[in-house]
Amino acid sequence: MTEAFTARPIGVLSTPWHSLDACPRNGRQPNPLPACEAQVFPEFVAGLRDLEGFSHLILLYWLHRGPERPPELVVTPPFDGQPHGLFTTRSPRRPNPIGLSVVAFDGFAARDRLKVRYLDCLDGTPLLDIKPYLPSTDAEPQATMGWLAKHRTARR
Amino acid sequence: MTEAFTARPIGVLSTPWHSLDACPRNGRQPNPLPACEAQVFPEFVAGLRDLEGFSHLILLYWLHRGPERPPELVVTPPFDGQPHGLFTTRSPRRPNPIGLSVVAFDGFAARDRLKVRYLDCLDGTPLLDIKPYLPSTDAEPQATMGWLAKHRTARR
Repeated sequence: MTEAFTARPIGVLSTPWHSLDACPRNGRQPNPLPACEAQVFPEFVAGLRDLEGFSHLILLYWLHRGPERPPELVVTPPFDGQPHGLFTTRSPRRPNPIGLSVVAFDGFAARDRLKVRYLDCLDGTPLLDIKPYLPSTDAEPQATMGWLAKHRTARR
Repeated sequence: MTEAFTARPIGVLSTPWHSLDACPRNGRQPNPLPACEAQVFPEFVAGLRDLEGFSHLILLYWLHRGPERPPELVVTPPFDGQPHGLFTTRSPRRPNPIGLSVVAFDGFAARDRLKVRYLDCLDGTPLLDIKPYLPSTDAEPQATMGWLAKHRTARR
């Protein structure tokens, strides 16, 4: 019997994408970059105090539209054509389908709505957490990225 | 009625810390840095194929030892003394207590055990996900960090 933990949404994400096929491979690929939003439910808005000082945030969300069957542990991404371990990919089909994006934070559209860039998920995706992005612990610009290096998304 | 999602561990983290008070403020603070491990349950080991090429990983885990009561949305960190919104902090007491660490990956201690540095959580913390760290989408070395700037952890 495996332990289980219950996650509940604290808000919802707004993006331009309404089907899994329409979602970009990552949130830096679309050109031009669309404006996205993270809406926070009223009971959590007090937790946003002082957020203006942070240029980037980490959003965690539940990829709620995946298949019910267990995910494949070795996957062959269409853009690569070779099999790779699931945990070397950012595939949305994971044992725990928690999505993570480092987003640029462009301020508040309303007191409960954050303007962000670089999301790649479906419109309506449930938001689980907002964390401040801290370059002191989160930025590793020299990190090596294995088989994904040849598919690296150029920075703009 | 709020939606709910069920997360289950894919493994467990080994660290030197056995009480919440003993955990460092972040995983870059201890000096010297301790070696930590992420053990992956047998049924998920196949997903680790090709992981060797990645120097850094993102680990997500469930902070299972927090209090049962709902977290405070405005918190006063002991190292700062001023109140701040919860979502501007990396406090482990969150609506969804999902921890995130960018760790250095130092190879395999066994086929199911990853050697990592920079964890800051309790020994025995349930592991939820392993993602490859991609500097192309995850590294923002110039990000501003609001009120946390004056508490920035120096890089070593």
